[in-house]
Amino acid sequence: MNTIGVGLIGTGYMGKCHALAWNAVTPVFGDALRPRLVHLAEVSPELAAQKADEFGFAKATGDWRVLIADPDVAVVSITTPNQFHAEMAIAALEAGKHVWCEKPMAVSLADAERMAAAAQRSGTVAALGYNYIQNPAIRQIGALIAEGAIGVVNHVRLEMDEDFMADPAAQFYWKSQASSGYGALDDFGVHPLSLLAVLLGRVERVCATMAKPYPTRPTPEGGQRPVETWDIANVMLEIEGGISGILALNRAAWGRKGRLALQLFGSGGTIVYDQERMNEFSIYRADGSTRTQGFTNVLMGPAHEPYQHFVPAPGHGLGFNDLKVIEAHEVLAAIAGRPARIIDFAGGLQIEQAVHAMARSHHSGEWVTL
Amino acid sequence: MNTIGVGLIGTGYMGKCHALAWNAVTPVFGDALRPRLVHLAEVSPELAAQKADEFGFAKATGDWRVLIADPDVAVVSITTPNQFHAEMAIAALEAGKHVWCEKPMAVSLADAERMAAAAQRSGTVAALGYNYIQNPAIRQIGALIAEGAIGVVNHVRLEMDEDFMADPAAQFYWKSQASSGYGALDDFGVHPLSLLAVLLGRVERVCATMAKPYPTRPTPEGGQRPVETWDIANVMLEIEGGISGILALNRAAWGRKGRLALQLFGSGGTIVYDQERMNEFSIYRADGSTRTQGFTNVLMGPAHEPYQHFVPAPGHGLGFNDLKVIEAHEVLAAIAGRPARIIDFAGGLQIEQAVHAMARSHHSGEWVTL
Amino acid sequence: MNTIGVGLIGTGYMGKCHALAWNAVTPVFGDALRPRLVHLAEVSPELAAQKADEFGFAKATGDWRVLIADPDVAVVSITTPNQFHAEMAIAALEAGKHVWCEKPMAVSLADAERMAAAAQRSGTVAALGYNYIQNPAIRQIGALIAEGAIGVVNHVRLEMDEDFMADPAAQFYWKSQASSGYGALDDFGVHPLSLLAVLLGRVERVCATMAKPYPTRPTPEGGQRPVETWDIANVMLEIEGGISGILALNRAAWGRKGRLALQLFGSGGTIVYDQERMNEFSIYRADGSTRTQGFTNVLMGPAHEPYQHFVPAPGHGLGFNDLKVIEAHEVLAAIAGRPARIIDFAGGLQIEQAVHAMARSHHSGEWVTL
Amino acid sequence: MNTIGVGLIGTGYMGKCHALAWNAVTPVFGDALRPRLVHLAEVSPELAAQKADEFGFAKATGDWRVLIADPDVAVVSITTPNQFHAEMAIAALEAGKHVWCEKPMAVSLADAERMAAAAQRSGTVAALGYNYIQNPAIRQIGALIAEGAIGVVNHVRLEMDEDFMADPAAQFYWKSQASSGYGALDDFGVHPLSLLAVLLGRVERVCATMAKPYPTRPTPEGGQRPVETWDIANVMLEIEGGISGILALNRAAWGRKGRLALQLFGSGGTIVYDQERMNEFSIYRADGSTRTQGFTNVLMGPAHEPYQHFVPAPGHGLGFNDLKVIEAHEVLAAIAGRPARIIDFAGGLQIEQAVHAMARSHHSGEWVTL
Repeated sequence: MNTIGVGLIGTGYMGKCHALAWNAVTPVFGDALRPRLVHLAEVSPELAAQKADEFGFAKATGDWRVLIADPDVAVVSITTPNQFHAEMAIAALEAGKHVWCEKPMAVSLADAERMAAAAQRSGTVAALGYNYIQNPAIRQIGALIAEGAIGVVNHVRLEMDEDFMADPAAQFYWKSQASSGYGALDDFGVHPLSLLAVLLGRVERVCATMAKPYPTRPTPEGGQRPVETWDIANVMLEIEGGISGILALNRAAWGRKGRLALQLFGSGGTIVYDQERMNEFSIYRADGSTRTQGFTNVLMGPAHEPYQHFVPAPGHGLGFNDLKVIEAHEVLAAIAGRPARIIDFAGGLQIEQAVHAMARSHHSGEWVTL
Repeated sequence: MNTIGVGLIGTGYMGKCHALAWNAVTPVFGDALRPRLVHLAEVSPELAAQKADEFGFAKATGDWRVLIADPDVAVVSITTPNQFHAEMAIAALEAGKHVWCEKPMAVSLADAERMAAAAQRSGTVAALGYNYIQNPAIRQIGALIAEGAIGVVNHVRLEMDEDFMADPAAQFYWKSQASSGYGALDDFGVHPLSLLAVLLGRVERVCATMAKPYPTRPTPEGGQRPVETWDIANVMLEIEGGISGILALNRAAWGRKGRLALQLFGSGGTIVYDQERMNEFSIYRADGSTRTQGFTNVLMGPAHEPYQHFVPAPGHGLGFNDLKVIEAHEVLAAIAGRPARIIDFAGGLQIEQAVHAMARSHHSGEWVTL
Repeated sequence: MNTIGVGLIGTGYMGKCHALAWNAVTPVFGDALRPRLVHLAEVSPELAAQKADEFGFAKATGDWRVLIADPDVAVVSITTPNQFHAEMAIAALEAGKHVWCEKPMAVSLADAERMAAAAQRSGTVAALGYNYIQNPAIRQIGALIAEGAIGVVNHVRLEMDEDFMADPAAQFYWKSQASSGYGALDDFGVHPLSLLAVLLGRVERVCATMAKPYPTRPTPEGGQRPVETWDIANVMLEIEGGISGILALNRAAWGRKGRLALQLFGSGGTIVYDQERMNEFSIYRADGSTRTQGFTNVLMGPAHEPYQHFVPAPGHGLGFNDLKVIEAHEVLAAIAGRPARIIDFAGGLQIEQAVHAMARSHHSGEWVTL
Repeated sequence: MNTIGVGLIGTGYMGKCHALAWNAVTPVFGDALRPRLVHLAEVSPELAAQKADEFGFAKATGDWRVLIADPDVAVVSITTPNQFHAEMAIAALEAGKHVWCEKPMAVSLADAERMAAAAQRSGTVAALGYNYIQNPAIRQIGALIAEGAIGVVNHVRLEMDEDFMADPAAQFYWKSQASSGYGALDDFGVHPLSLLAVLLGRVERVCATMAKPYPTRPTPEGGQRPVETWDIANVMLEIEGGISGILALNRAAWGRKGRLALQLFGSGGTIVYDQERMNEFSIYRADGSTRTQGFTNVLMGPAHEPYQHFVPAPGHGLGFNDLKVIEAHEVLAAIAGRPARIIDFAGGLQIEQAVHAMARSHHSGEWVTL
């Protein structure tokens, strides 16, 4: 039995999610390579100590550089706000650590490029937290496409929508500022692009436009301030292999909570999926009698790798946090030198390049080739 | 009780649909102005006679000009292939008849313009057969938008998909030829654009691209012939009032049979609709407790005008043909000088202009302003 | 071309539905035997004249016996309140007419028996208006069962729910009185039983209980009056061939508008259906890879007889009134001596017997054998 | 910070589920009382050692009595086959331990009674593993009912279906034997009854029937052997407060994987739920305009206690295993003396009494009062 020392930087939304995954991966999968929860870093020693206690980490620090310097830490989870990813990831890689960094990779393309270069130099595992690709439904969809179950894919539609920016009365805040990025495009776009990357391949050309549903937002002082980011983005895509596509993003979409919807059209059928019902997908195949053709709704079960490690009975359902457990398992597989389903920093850079090309297209009003 | 003489040209898919509507409109609505089924024209006198008998028309002719010349005919249903619309409609209008012409208006923009001019000159009713706007669900959605039930609409997504061109083994035929038009863009695009027209307003700018899922198709002789039309079209829209949108069209979408899907996002809520389940729509409103917020699926019933004329009980369902009955009723209302929910030739021309602007954008790779 | 003279008694909900069907059946089906709309009867000559005009009947009368005596009437639609069915149907049958009578057959079992006897004596067609059996989806489900698509059926669940009695503040009215029947049991139960009859066979044993959600209802005078009928009924069934089943009926089910839901379990699969989405059904078949097994949702189209007579394209949807057109077509087929999909008075009597057996079981608390 | 020593007996389906819950409960909830994973028992020392290692337990034993005797163990998870529950639970209770025992409580009513008596004597926490009651959706439904959101509940329908016994070609095995219990009734019935217990109250009268879809099953020797259990059960219920209900159970229901469906009808609305889509429920309320009434589909989120401890964003989804984490948290709350949402042995005995009453009703053909 081998073990590997884990360090965790950050304990917010994704930090807790990583902590849960590191705790669960051995009981779920029972594999040979097992994480030891060694060190946790937060902004203050007090918070770090509290969270280390809750999450089961042995040591705590208010200085993430101490964690990276800890020789007992071999893999570092980076779950801090996006602007810190580059510095921390590069430091960890240069210290010879494996890195599991949350997405998006970085705020600027230059940072993403530096991260990818550091990963290439280090030779260690540098994985990004694109957990939706770990959904057994997505893995199954990928297998079906590879088998030709819907023939040759020729068209795709992707949508990602939530409603946390939908209230026009919500105040101007950091996500309204240009310093946070473009808006829906980089905040959301990376998720559907991660699915495209594992299911279909590279994006080759894009034409995009962004929109502001609320050009101004109230300020705490009672005035109105112009919003600097775009909550909506529309993109037309050309994907490797002559596949045409549409990508629509909206973080001001009332009623959508975690919609990440996919429509894949092929010469022999169609597959549709929505992350809001993450334990199912539907497939139409153009065979058999027309009297009984239709979309077949498939509930995930033990037949859909790696569902069976969580529950032996079908249709019982995985949750969002389970995807991170699967991801942790894939990161460990990569560290162990086995084939792994991860998007590494090189793959992540391609996603970032696509996002920034879309932003350029918005400003030029023209197609941009990647 | 007034009656009005009806002439019907064409008895195919839409011709039969018009015939059913003319037969049903009085029993359903019981209105004062009632159609008399006077004259039916088909390509041969024999077919005309047979169909006149089936559909209940008094006279039959193999020459549509005879029908238009019939003084007892006051309104003419034109349901022939698209390339004949202009000639027939203009002749009928010039003869002082009311015209109810199937969509799309015409194959060329020039023809559409001539038709609109003829309608303006005639002063009679010149209506187009955009029957989806007659769905009580769409009418209700329009009323809700007008009332501000979802606040100010700021984003819209439209999809129209069927699968009659989805089989790559299907032979090259007239819809594969450039003479039939652009492809999905004009074949399908006019339907969602008709919904936009009644729900939101004018399209102001477009950026479009079209795609061929199957660049060649087999010929009867056993070879392959390059396909000249695009079965897929993707469009980014800017609509009156600063509304951004996406329009996606695919007539090679396996499994989609009559999908015409709408997502309308507003500052206070969201409405979604799909014509494949034409007797319902869903609305999310950002009010009340977050514990019970969600999309409310509304089944059509007598509360949704003019459903109650068909069935007094809710949830029992109208069918596709019933939409044409409603449309006939609106055409008669217009003829009687009452307010009517129709898209006339002037409105139809705007739709055609949008379609042709999209085609220009595809070729230029740039945004086109209408 | 043969024609047949039609008489219509009653012009309410179902009367209008019959009138629409008689108007549409020839344009839709184009068959050889065609209805002529001869005579219409209502409670007053004035109403009869008005409705005859709207519905296209040549003659009108305030006395239904005059209509039955009319030698030009060969088939009589009876759509009056239930308590009149027996007298009118028997008179028509004794006059040698064909009869198309709305369901339920009669209020009392004795009346139903007299009607069945009269039908047997007359030798003419005596059909009941069980229109849900005419839905192409139900016809297709029947064909699939017959083919063994889901193996041997061994269990069935039926539900019928509406909400017109759901409001506890609604006043006591005639449906609250014992003279109207048992309540949901006979008001609703006959519909799912008609589906059982065409899909599976005879009900052999029943055990039932009824319930009153609101034991009293307000009266116009401001008091409360005990309700004499049961808005809810629960039944356990044994059906021919050893099939077990459950039947649940509720006319006080808030939110249900026209729910008539069916779950059919077999040794090789399952079929589910809900009349609120009448243009689709779902089938699960236990074959193929478990990775893609699931319920396939089939949208009705031209492959599903007789949909193609209404619309040539799939997925466009029939409506409730179209089912009556199909039923009229079947009645005409029966009159013409062709095989027809109808429930005749003998079949209707079996349904009534089942309903009354359920009521007896409620009172005895025991199983009742039919 | 207090800790409590945990012993786990059994490591199969539910044993692993408990192990995952004990590992996750502190990272998820961060509470003061924290489990220490002390001792694990399995049928052999080798398997026990292997699983203790995977699941993070300090000690392992092949003898469950050793675990119960361990003074460092304060709470015992019992996840062994049903016939062992009574002996183990009683031994643990008599040793002064808290017990968390999987359902069903016991195979015989006598055993369940002995367990309940032992629990009463011990005064420690004795909880049953009815994890579906822990679903935030069910908790929310309960709160809505309590608030009167759907008025006074008057009717309920419950269904539980899976398909692991659906294949007629599957061999006779232990679940086909009478020694395993009645069949679907006790195997499944306890789940919907646990929901009834927390949502509505006690079952007062029952009338039930059971059915065998496959009277015989193949044996390994090539013959056929009569099946001794019933895979289907149908029950009519009377519930505290005059609520009528239906309960339908089928473990031979092709296509159903984890269906546990609930329809709750009240004087002011309706709630529906299906565990196969465990992160949502629908509610219809009879208020507001009829134009926008319908079933509102509510996606679970942080507004639905205790979802927020798992994910801070709505609509992201919990999984089946998360329900056990919530349950572990409730067991710890009970141990800490705080109010807890658990079904204890006294409550479990009521469920068992209902199940056995249903079996008696099947044999007598009559209603049985509890």
